[in-house]
Amino acid sequence: MQEQLSVKHLLGIKDLTPGDIELIFETADEFKDVINRPIKKVPSLRDVTVANVFFENSTRTKLSFELAEKRLSADIINFSSSNSSVKKGETLLDTVNNILSMKVDMIVMRHASPGAPHFLSKHIKANIVNAGDGTHEHPTQALLDTFSIRQRLGGVAGKKVAIIGDILHSRVALSNIFALQKLGAEVMVCGPITLLPKHIATLGVKVELNVRKALEWCDVANVLRIQLERQQIKYFPSLREYSLYYGINKKLLDSLNKEIVIMHPGPINRGVELSSDVADSDHAIILDQVENGVAIRMAVLYLLASLSKN
Amino acid sequence: MQEQLSVKHLLGIKDLTPGDIELIFETADEFKDVINRPIKKVPSLRDVTVANVFFENSTRTKLSFELAEKRLSADIINFSSSNSSVKKGETLLDTVNNILSMKVDMIVMRHASPGAPHFLSKHIKANIVNAGDGTHEHPTQALLDTFSIRQRLGGVAGKKVAIIGDILHSRVALSNIFALQKLGAEVMVCGPITLLPKHIATLGVKVELNVRKALEWCDVANVLRIQLERQQIKYFPSLREYSLYYGINKKLLDSLNKEIVIMHPGPINRGVELSSDVADSDHAIILDQVENGVAIRMAVLYLLASLSKN
Amino acid sequence: MQEQLSVKHLLGIKDLTPGDIELIFETADEFKDVINRPIKKVPSLRDVTVANVFFENSTRTKLSFELAEKRLSADIINFSSSNSSVKKGETLLDTVNNILSMKVDMIVMRHASPGAPHFLSKHIKANIVNAGDGTHEHPTQALLDTFSIRQRLGGVAGKKVAIIGDILHSRVALSNIFALQKLGAEVMVCGPITLLPKHIATLGVKVELNVRKALEWCDVANVLRIQLERQQIKYFPSLREYSLYYGINKKLLDSLNKEIVIMHPGPINRGVELSSDVADSDHAIILDQVENGVAIRMAVLYLLASLSKN
Repeated sequence: MQEQLSVKHLLGIKDLTPGDIELIFETADEFKDVINRPIKKVPSLRDVTVANVFFENSTRTKLSFELAEKRLSADIINFSSSNSSVKKGETLLDTVNNILSMKVDMIVMRHASPGAPHFLSKHIKANIVNAGDGTHEHPTQALLDTFSIRQRLGGVAGKKVAIIGDILHSRVALSNIFALQKLGAEVMVCGPITLLPKHIATLGVKVELNVRKALEWCDVANVLRIQLERQQIKYFPSLREYSLYYGINKKLLDSLNKEIVIMHPGPINRGVELSSDVADSDHAIILDQVENGVAIRMAVLYLLASLSKN
Repeated sequence: MQEQLSVKHLLGIKDLTPGDIELIFETADEFKDVINRPIKKVPSLRDVTVANVFFENSTRTKLSFELAEKRLSADIINFSSSNSSVKKGETLLDTVNNILSMKVDMIVMRHASPGAPHFLSKHIKANIVNAGDGTHEHPTQALLDTFSIRQRLGGVAGKKVAIIGDILHSRVALSNIFALQKLGAEVMVCGPITLLPKHIATLGVKVELNVRKALEWCDVANVLRIQLERQQIKYFPSLREYSLYYGINKKLLDSLNKEIVIMHPGPINRGVELSSDVADSDHAIILDQVENGVAIRMAVLYLLASLSKN
Repeated sequence: MQEQLSVKHLLGIKDLTPGDIELIFETADEFKDVINRPIKKVPSLRDVTVANVFFENSTRTKLSFELAEKRLSADIINFSSSNSSVKKGETLLDTVNNILSMKVDMIVMRHASPGAPHFLSKHIKANIVNAGDGTHEHPTQALLDTFSIRQRLGGVAGKKVAIIGDILHSRVALSNIFALQKLGAEVMVCGPITLLPKHIATLGVKVELNVRKALEWCDVANVLRIQLERQQIKYFPSLREYSLYYGINKKLLDSLNKEIVIMHPGPINRGVELSSDVADSDHAIILDQVENGVAIRMAVLYLLASLSKN
């Protein structure tokens, strides 16, 4: 096994080797043991200061990173743009350089603009973890998703995974496609034509408009949230139409005569993309994904911090 | 003395036995010693993770809980609805289950809807502390109030306590009535008829519209805040009328020829329900209430955490 | 050297003796060593609880104080007015007394009203650090500014410092004037006449309207931010006019045939008061100021806490 990451920052899954991902998974395995024992903390990041720099709100991702940092005994500072100098006209680089001047070692950043963490990485020394850049990448989500598949099915290679829903506005979709392909899975995307990016097939994924056919094909269905707040296009299925044609309920699953693992990055719109009897069934590993998120983030932070020490 | 609480959650005073309350008081006595010594911390909740989940703003209650958790060496995560997935249509149970999947042991929750923590308690394993559910209960406030009476007067049994002001919109009033009755005090509520709940007398309390008569009767006056932000009724004394007919000032107190302990849950509208010469007098134990709040919350968290260990 | 501060609170530079400032600097020297080593923490404020009470937003000052407190191992609670009882009509003194009743030892306060921390200091026992009171003082900023000059030029006495920009709306200017004069520097203020306070010359500073002349005179230029959000006067140079007549760029600096140290309290409006080639040049010590801010704040908190122990 690889002993350290081949990258200094976690900007996207695109830059990772399969060996990097495997290393993160094996490290996360160990941290899962940690957070499931009575003493949930390790001193691994004592004397490392991590700044959570969120230019966009993100309750669940931020909580998960904060808990990961606390379990690793890091010092934490939180910066959010809502009460920030960004509004006073400061540049992104000035804002981050200011934070780094206070002797911060790592930056976990959520930003609305695709590429913002990549830009930063060329100008600063600290390690950067991309916690979501616009509709581009969300690498820790893809890592926790594939880690959860590996946990449930014993591996990712050769598995058939359908990503279903609003692919166009999702940062989760792109990172998942990269991660699944690097680990040898087959990937299909499925959704209404208006919610699929134009050139999605060039990424080497199957494209399917019919949700039943997607479910008949796959071992795992990763069902995305309908992100109403991002939609700017005119023609679009209404929530009611979406739920009617793409919503996944128990009756549909039962009619397939096969078992499918159901995933969802949350928050769920119950009754829209998933019915409650599916979301709460044994096939759903939605809460495992959340639990694995803390372990994966611990692993990423730990591995990046180890790099800086060398 | 009882050795552990009879309840797994602190949802309301209604569910507590007098023995539970006594146990909380005796535990709080010990923690008061802790927070008054130079080293204010104890390791009691080391390796326990507490989430403060506030769907409504509440500066002072939240600060008090946070300090209690820090004094107990708990790991703390803060979740507030202002930047949350609640707005994205997630259900309360999904939100809380997500938080719990990150290996959180206790939930301190403030919610606008009466009964929200009771609903949760039927579906989750973690201990819940109700930090106020709408106009229903606010149990830690009632515990710190009665604890403060016990501290000032040597006991609660047999004491006459008048709760004065806006009873209708107050979560403090109901919890205080339950706590005082369980501890053997006599309770009176006093306020304008428009600010008294219709069937309040069925709770076994005296009802009095005249504030002078209430003060003549009682040993302790717990003066509530006029909660302008909650009032939706048409006919209501204006602030000026309220202050004129129900405001408590030094002249009124002096005319009684007796000593009354003055309490207030804060924040005070000086010049409305209390004049400054009363709020700042030796009869007022308002800041003792705040201090005791930390000790009471430490006791509650400690006792609930001890339960889970068994 | 002095062994302790002559003041119990840091309300403003006005109250400090030169010996106080020197003591803070020498203490900050030691803390700079601390934050530059791998183990950035000292246990100096263990068991001291500090409340950051911010009635106005201030991302960078608050982050800097929080990091200083964490490096000193203090317990920290954060109170901001946006979700506070201030809106419910509570007085400043009641709010602070409530916080103090929870056994808080020190208050770091930002407030929009000049004199707010001075008022408080007459009524409470805890140490107060003024983190900015309206357009009045911002003492830790002036300390870190003069500390940065001392670091760059080997001392402050005899140096010529020009404070350039919006003097009228700046709390940084007044505190800097006091600090520089107490340490024996010569001070000039420079800006458009509409942005200079009427009686500024009575403070014993030179006044200059022409930025080239100010630069020709000085060793150090402390360039302030144009605070658009504070301006309420009618006649005022537009941003474009300001940049044209007062903006400092490389061409202007090169034409002087001398070296000037460039300072800025941040956040920078690049292209307005400073061009990027100046802000990013070796003459600029802007990020040193940020780094020194943490050390200075550690020193202030440490020295005030030492006082209380005696």
